[in-house]
Amino acid sequence: MNPSSASQDQCSLDETHDPQARSWLASANRSGEFPIQNLPFAIFRRRGSSETFRGGVAIGDQIVDLAALAARDVFQEQAAQGIRAGALTSLNTLMQLGPEVANALRRGLFAGLLEGSRLQGALEACLVPQRDAQYSLPAQIGDYTDFYTSIHHATAVGRMMRPDHPLMPNYQWIPIGYHGRVSSIGVSGQTFHRPRGQKLPAGTTQPVMAAAERMDYELELGVFVGRGNDPGAPIAMAQAEAHIFGLCLLNDWSARDIQGWEYQPLGPFLGKNFATTVSPWIVGIEALAPFRAPAFARPAGDPQPMVYLDDEANRNAGAIDMQLEVLLLTQQMRAAGEAPTRLSSSNFKDSYWTVAQMVAHHTVGGCDLNAGDLFGSGTMSGPGKDQYGSLLELSWGGKNTLMLPNGETRTFLQDGDSVILRAHCQREGYARVGFGDCAGTLLPAIP
Amino acid sequence: MNPSSASQDQCSLDETHDPQARSWLASANRSGEFPIQNLPFAIFRRRGSSETFRGGVAIGDQIVDLAALAARDVFQEQAAQGIRAGALTSLNTLMQLGPEVANALRRGLFAGLLEGSRLQGALEACLVPQRDAQYSLPAQIGDYTDFYTSIHHATAVGRMMRPDHPLMPNYQWIPIGYHGRVSSIGVSGQTFHRPRGQKLPAGTTQPVMAAAERMDYELELGVFVGRGNDPGAPIAMAQAEAHIFGLCLLNDWSARDIQGWEYQPLGPFLGKNFATTVSPWIVGIEALAPFRAPAFARPAGDPQPMVYLDDEANRNAGAIDMQLEVLLLTQQMRAAGEAPTRLSSSNFKDSYWTVAQMVAHHTVGGCDLNAGDLFGSGTMSGPGKDQYGSLLELSWGGKNTLMLPNGETRTFLQDGDSVILRAHCQREGYARVGFGDCAGTLLPAIP
Repeated sequence: MNPSSASQDQCSLDETHDPQARSWLASANRSGEFPIQNLPFAIFRRRGSSETFRGGVAIGDQIVDLAALAARDVFQEQAAQGIRAGALTSLNTLMQLGPEVANALRRGLFAGLLEGSRLQGALEACLVPQRDAQYSLPAQIGDYTDFYTSIHHATAVGRMMRPDHPLMPNYQWIPIGYHGRVSSIGVSGQTFHRPRGQKLPAGTTQPVMAAAERMDYELELGVFVGRGNDPGAPIAMAQAEAHIFGLCLLNDWSARDIQGWEYQPLGPFLGKNFATTVSPWIVGIEALAPFRAPAFARPAGDPQPMVYLDDEANRNAGAIDMQLEVLLLTQQMRAAGEAPTRLSSSNFKDSYWTVAQMVAHHTVGGCDLNAGDLFGSGTMSGPGKDQYGSLLELSWGGKNTLMLPNGETRTFLQDGDSVILRAHCQREGYARVGFGDCAGTLLPAIP
Repeated sequence: MNPSSASQDQCSLDETHDPQARSWLASANRSGEFPIQNLPFAIFRRRGSSETFRGGVAIGDQIVDLAALAARDVFQEQAAQGIRAGALTSLNTLMQLGPEVANALRRGLFAGLLEGSRLQGALEACLVPQRDAQYSLPAQIGDYTDFYTSIHHATAVGRMMRPDHPLMPNYQWIPIGYHGRVSSIGVSGQTFHRPRGQKLPAGTTQPVMAAAERMDYELELGVFVGRGNDPGAPIAMAQAEAHIFGLCLLNDWSARDIQGWEYQPLGPFLGKNFATTVSPWIVGIEALAPFRAPAFARPAGDPQPMVYLDDEANRNAGAIDMQLEVLLLTQQMRAAGEAPTRLSSSNFKDSYWTVAQMVAHHTVGGCDLNAGDLFGSGTMSGPGKDQYGSLLELSWGGKNTLMLPNGETRTFLQDGDSVILRAHCQREGYARVGFGDCAGTLLPAIP
């Protein structure tokens, strides 16, 4: 399989997408995040153990332990190669092997988990309950790039600052992105202290040093790079998705007051680099094939994408129909045993730029991508006011107070607040594919 | 030794700074880059070999091979620990061991290389000529941060865009920085193709996709982080330099036309991420002790640094008196066997912010630094017009043509141009400490 046909395969369906497929594992057949059609990857070990972290694949409420499976040697060829790579302490090696191996592994595990498979015994012996698992970052992330692909978010944020011309003139031409901080990326469950930093109090000209007051989340997709490009070689649109391993959720925590004072002229720095949280499970690009959607329909008057950002496959199916939501669990709600409350929901298909366009743009000047590199999509806000992916938008810069069901109010986050991102893909005639939670908690500033 | 006293030590002199000290290696005693008072680190192997890369220390025209030295086991305690760490394929482990080990290693090697040392025979057996060496990046760089610490550069660039108020209001308060791309950092000798990208032709409103025309270098210092901070814990000024391993040269290659169109609102991206070159040798912070200088003298009216960016040691000796220069070797000069021509020179002591201030600011919000992280200082321009650290400034945005001695002209770089950065510290009564070359070459755009 050459990269070109691998790319086509991202949108083609095979037996692994059959909604009638059932597993011998009962929990996989109940409506949930991880049916047999999903099979996402994570790095895990048993919580509280000193086991080595290794790769696992989610099925129902269990994890197929790839290190245990590698030791049993029941698969062949590329599937076996994938399992050996997946047994390591990070997924980078598996990612670098590319879509041929990832897809062989997917098909192999699918067959083994199917009702009636002769491999049931071998696989049952490799299961670890998800409730017992502790996760680490799924990859050693070499570089992290945060994009800005929702025109709804860019317009809303721009409108607060420049009501007359909210969008920068480059927005409709360039999938805007910048380099983010790798060292502070953590996996779901991450906790971090409210950062201190410089900020400019409203109406003054002298900054102060204090704990951030405008603490925010950003609802984003995370995109893990699979096989890297050849050094210095641009990746064309037709090959772009063959260089993507899969998607997760990402919370780009932001201190708006620090960011506002520091970001000119070189972009966000301390306003973003104290914490970034990703969900532990990476849903393979192949599992998302049933949920592909046409790329953003540009209104009349918007420029069409330049040639290097455009192809027919992208126009027809470059987007992904993926429902996203943000939930908030406050300290008070936690103490009262209440469930988190939903703040907003949106859909990744409303992104102005697609994953393939991110890849093509990132590499057009020769920048090297490596397996395990991470992209953030940028805040995924939709066109509606209930679809804003940040408190900055929901509170309109802190001007509007959000009422929570328990009577609490918020403009920005308070100490003890947990933010939980969730996502799923659902389409008539296909099994629902979930992503698992991306949760993180804001602790008080260090005194 | 606790971190606080280690920090004080950066500015204190010991036997390793004695200008009278001479080595048994004759080339170390001739005026050059690498006398016995310098002892910088690199990662190297013999060129054309398939040897494993390992650490080395420059002395005269030779390299002390730390892997060979580790095998001979002639040092004790912390010096021996440092040599074992330095024998690995990157310097990260040595960096993480902190200043106590780095300084013990420095003192041990200094004693062994001194005229009359009983270790002469053992060390002689570990020498590899520099002319035979191939270098790799000295560390696995987890994160790369580029600062903007020269007010002369920020003012010059600002003046081209905003003649009335060239400096942003935050400049004198914040050591402005942003996250750069790690994957495209290479060691001296790096070659790269002229990037293609979007740019907005002057006087138009529609961008074009083409090879960059305004190719530039930036003369910068590189700063390698040593021991990281505790997770989420700010580093105070008094401890800041105890977290620095050493300094090198860094060329932040820039495509000004790509950068100009893309950088609003989130900062530089493709205009910078195609290549960044560092010099192979890292001069330890301890070797620079004789060349410390008072921090930038702020003119009346400039705000004083905030408390977290200020202490007496920094005011008195936070800067480093380090001469920098940029040389250009064109294709035509190379063909004619001519020497490179100097474009400008400047001094790191004219930086508005010091290395300690970069560390304190970077971590004040809880961002994690790790051993091997790299900072760029930002373009080091001085107050004079012959001290500009980029062609953007020297040609004033392309308006002024530079005449080269051989009759060629430049506004920006042409294909085949090599840019060579050099630096040294020199002070009456002390041995001259050099940094070695940081060279890179621009190749034509990929067709």
